[in-house]
Amino acid sequence: MDIVKGLEAWSRLLGQDSIIVDSQVLQTYQTATYTTSAQILAILKPSNRQQISPLVKIANEYSIPLYPISGGRNWGYGSRVPVKDGCIILDLGNLTEITDYNEELAYVTLEPGVTQGQLYQFLQERHSPLWMDATGAGLGSSLIGNVMERGFGHTPYGDRFSQVCGLEVVLPTGECIHTGFGRFPNAQAASVYRWGVGAYLDGLFTQSNLGIVTQMTFWLMPAPECFGAFSFSIDKDEELPALLDALRPLRLDDTLRSAIHVGNHYKVLSSVRLYPWAEMEGKTPLSLAVIEQLSKSWDYKAWNGFGGLYGSREQVAAARRLLKKALAGKVARLTFLDDRKLQWGERLAPLYQKITGIRLPEMLKIMRPVYDLMKGIPSSRFLESTYWRKKTPIPEEMEPNRDGCGLIWCAPVVPLDGKHAAVINRMATETILSHGFEPMLSLTLLTGRCLGCIISISYDRAVEGEDERAMACYKELSAKLTGEGYYPYRLGIQSMDLLAKAEDSYQHLMDQLKQTLDPKGILAPGRYQP
Amino acid sequence: MDIVKGLEAWSRLLGQDSIIVDSQVLQTYQTATYTTSAQILAILKPSNRQQISPLVKIANEYSIPLYPISGGRNWGYGSRVPVKDGCIILDLGNLTEITDYNEELAYVTLEPGVTQGQLYQFLQERHSPLWMDATGAGLGSSLIGNVMERGFGHTPYGDRFSQVCGLEVVLPTGECIHTGFGRFPNAQAASVYRWGVGAYLDGLFTQSNLGIVTQMTFWLMPAPECFGAFSFSIDKDEELPALLDALRPLRLDDTLRSAIHVGNHYKVLSSVRLYPWAEMEGKTPLSLAVIEQLSKSWDYKAWNGFGGLYGSREQVAAARRLLKKALAGKVARLTFLDDRKLQWGERLAPLYQKITGIRLPEMLKIMRPVYDLMKGIPSSRFLESTYWRKKTPIPEEMEPNRDGCGLIWCAPVVPLDGKHAAVINRMATETILSHGFEPMLSLTLLTGRCLGCIISISYDRAVEGEDERAMACYKELSAKLTGEGYYPYRLGIQSMDLLAKAEDSYQHLMDQLKQTLDPKGILAPGRYQP
Repeated sequence: MDIVKGLEAWSRLLGQDSIIVDSQVLQTYQTATYTTSAQILAILKPSNRQQISPLVKIANEYSIPLYPISGGRNWGYGSRVPVKDGCIILDLGNLTEITDYNEELAYVTLEPGVTQGQLYQFLQERHSPLWMDATGAGLGSSLIGNVMERGFGHTPYGDRFSQVCGLEVVLPTGECIHTGFGRFPNAQAASVYRWGVGAYLDGLFTQSNLGIVTQMTFWLMPAPECFGAFSFSIDKDEELPALLDALRPLRLDDTLRSAIHVGNHYKVLSSVRLYPWAEMEGKTPLSLAVIEQLSKSWDYKAWNGFGGLYGSREQVAAARRLLKKALAGKVARLTFLDDRKLQWGERLAPLYQKITGIRLPEMLKIMRPVYDLMKGIPSSRFLESTYWRKKTPIPEEMEPNRDGCGLIWCAPVVPLDGKHAAVINRMATETILSHGFEPMLSLTLLTGRCLGCIISISYDRAVEGEDERAMACYKELSAKLTGEGYYPYRLGIQSMDLLAKAEDSYQHLMDQLKQTLDPKGILAPGRYQP
Repeated sequence: MDIVKGLEAWSRLLGQDSIIVDSQVLQTYQTATYTTSAQILAILKPSNRQQISPLVKIANEYSIPLYPISGGRNWGYGSRVPVKDGCIILDLGNLTEITDYNEELAYVTLEPGVTQGQLYQFLQERHSPLWMDATGAGLGSSLIGNVMERGFGHTPYGDRFSQVCGLEVVLPTGECIHTGFGRFPNAQAASVYRWGVGAYLDGLFTQSNLGIVTQMTFWLMPAPECFGAFSFSIDKDEELPALLDALRPLRLDDTLRSAIHVGNHYKVLSSVRLYPWAEMEGKTPLSLAVIEQLSKSWDYKAWNGFGGLYGSREQVAAARRLLKKALAGKVARLTFLDDRKLQWGERLAPLYQKITGIRLPEMLKIMRPVYDLMKGIPSSRFLESTYWRKKTPIPEEMEPNRDGCGLIWCAPVVPLDGKHAAVINRMATETILSHGFEPMLSLTLLTGRCLGCIISISYDRAVEGEDERAMACYKELSAKLTGEGYYPYRLGIQSMDLLAKAEDSYQHLMDQLKQTLDPKGILAPGRYQP
């Protein structure tokens, strides 16, 4: 590794301003929402995507490892911090061009620096009849960055990786390729057909360190004539399996076209307010007595679900009836919500609170962004929950890394079958409580066949010893889950070694692929590598 | 290459009966529906999938190329014939185990020898509430074989490669891997979640020569409460763009959940009867006068479409109304069909013919399997059209390779936009007519964004010079299409060199992958390799 010569070469290529070595800035990049140890050497911020290929060639020439990030909002999974020590961060945040947009065929092509907020703005400005898919990661979250991790969103296009195509990838050697039909001259169908002809390679570049995606096409969803949301609750853990089993057929037959989220009371409480320090007299973890007492004023139950219905008026009405029928006797409550009802609710909420004591105005403050998310409207509102255990007020501009918000995510995938959900719930709840944290669980019906279980360990990094306790909790939970055959859909930088559990032949294949595509090992060493 | 030693070793592994060297049998394997030149050395027919890995190791040891086939029904694309000379055929047709079946989570796991007919039978015997997806390739077509070519079917699960997961793959070196979560011990979600964790590799093994898939999980569709079919026609080519543009929004918003097929009059005629030798007084190609004359008795028009509606009674009714509205004024006729109507039609058809002269009974003989296909019921009826230009009657047991049926398919993908369809139609019609064949075109709305254009060149291999004329026609058409940027979704063995049009960097990557995974180059040399 010859770092000095490398920086000189990059400086000639990018200009001095695009290279950051200031130790304070470096410090912010190597800070996540939990303990990490990797130190970085510098940050490169190229200003256009033509610079990526020569930039990567320089990294090869001087054997300097690069760690690419897009928006860098990988909160709970390691933020912007590399897996290994001694990398240069390649920050693609300035590559913000939207290079193609087709309203008829419903797609947009864009660069890694394009955020959810930017695309939403772009569509708004054009009065576009198309919806994007959005996640709860905030306005500044990169669309490509999220797909690279195979994140999922809240609209019918929520299984994001299945709604993209036409990748431009700079390989670890600096060569640039286009996947699908895009590799052929004048290809007419490059942005509308995923598979192209010959081997389909897109998957190789997600959750890996085999290439830097510098452009991607996202399919957009035509705004439906009608959108309706619904929410439901159950009183007890014991009712959870039957609830999920009742939802499965509707998700399988596409009556429910988007992911349905079912969160426990801890999850709901943490999304509407910070930790109730006063009620708990400063103690942790949250007692069942207090969470039940608070459930009255916030009107949540043991498990609370929501989802969206999309289609023509008639189609939505048909879906609503099927849902009612399926959940009859399975839920304590089932509520349908549409634009008009939500607006009225917002107007009448203060009055409602006066009469019932239920904090509807505050509840709606979170309901509105949840509702919007299902319509592809991104919001930064959900970041507030990362401040759960903080004793200081939430700042105007949230930055969980900077503010010492502790957050570790653990996200096993399980078959969509009530029995499995009960096992996961018991395992996660017991383990997290035993470590002194709140077991916040959200079960997402990703498809009709599987649940994505999003389990968060939320804490205050400013509290002495909490970093260690939280990580110990995570490690124990992760070991228990994988021990029972429940593997995560995505990994934080601290748990790449989980991949070593794979059969030897598979690991050997992955090693060979890495060796072939990245002979000098310069791209994101250790990322999705055991 | 040491073929003698290889055969000895395989004989010890598989038993002598599993090795075929009889020249007559070899001849049948090296016969397709058009001219091919590759000679094969022998055929291996292993009896279980545990034999594949050691079998492939032997191929490596003695540097003998293997060409795997499943059902071998790759008609129109080269059938069972290898791309290159001097291969051993690895016929996986005896691997017919269905290894897992889960009714609640709606999937089945099976081996490459399992045919459409076998799976259909399996589901019928169990009175399964699940539907498989079916193609027109006949009862003997392998399910895995079709997915390996990324074929598509006629139900909402028709984009087949997006409805499978959990591949077991024997790599060209003989190592065996499991993709997705399946590579981890005791993985609970291996058959229900496609992506697993880490790079998604499944795509690498489709349309490639990088591995032999020995097991795969297919997701099945819960039978809907209600199924309804529809058909429509237009009088003139000029109306085609507006028709497709009117269908697009309904396919995009999932009102139309499965592929819609729109075929021209040549296509329809070739599916209901053989070439009208009498009417044409023995001449070819078919004149417009005769095709128009016949259109009266068969009741087809310039373009004829069909598709299915799936859901609850109410959902299907809603879709029907939306379809009616969208096609109003765009079609000469729009007919809805359901089980009851079809049964009545079948009963009353002879009477109808007496009154109108329209050959409804014969028309229904093809309508029934088309209708069934949309419900996932496979049929061999569609193979009859491969006999189009034959002067002999269709045999009881059809075998297009053996019977000298000439068939070459050309399948470009174009954006789902009327303008592109018009270009393709003009280009294909002019080119094929100029070579003396009938331009049979079917435009399939694969998704809301693209059309798969299935163009067939159908002829009689027994006619002197036809093989050459048909191939010349194919080559000209293919060159014209790719010249305009329309690339095929799939390649016949004669056109793998089309891949050489890709950018150099991409070809270089593919070469590297092949070299790494198959250092001795023993797996299907030339297949999806320029």
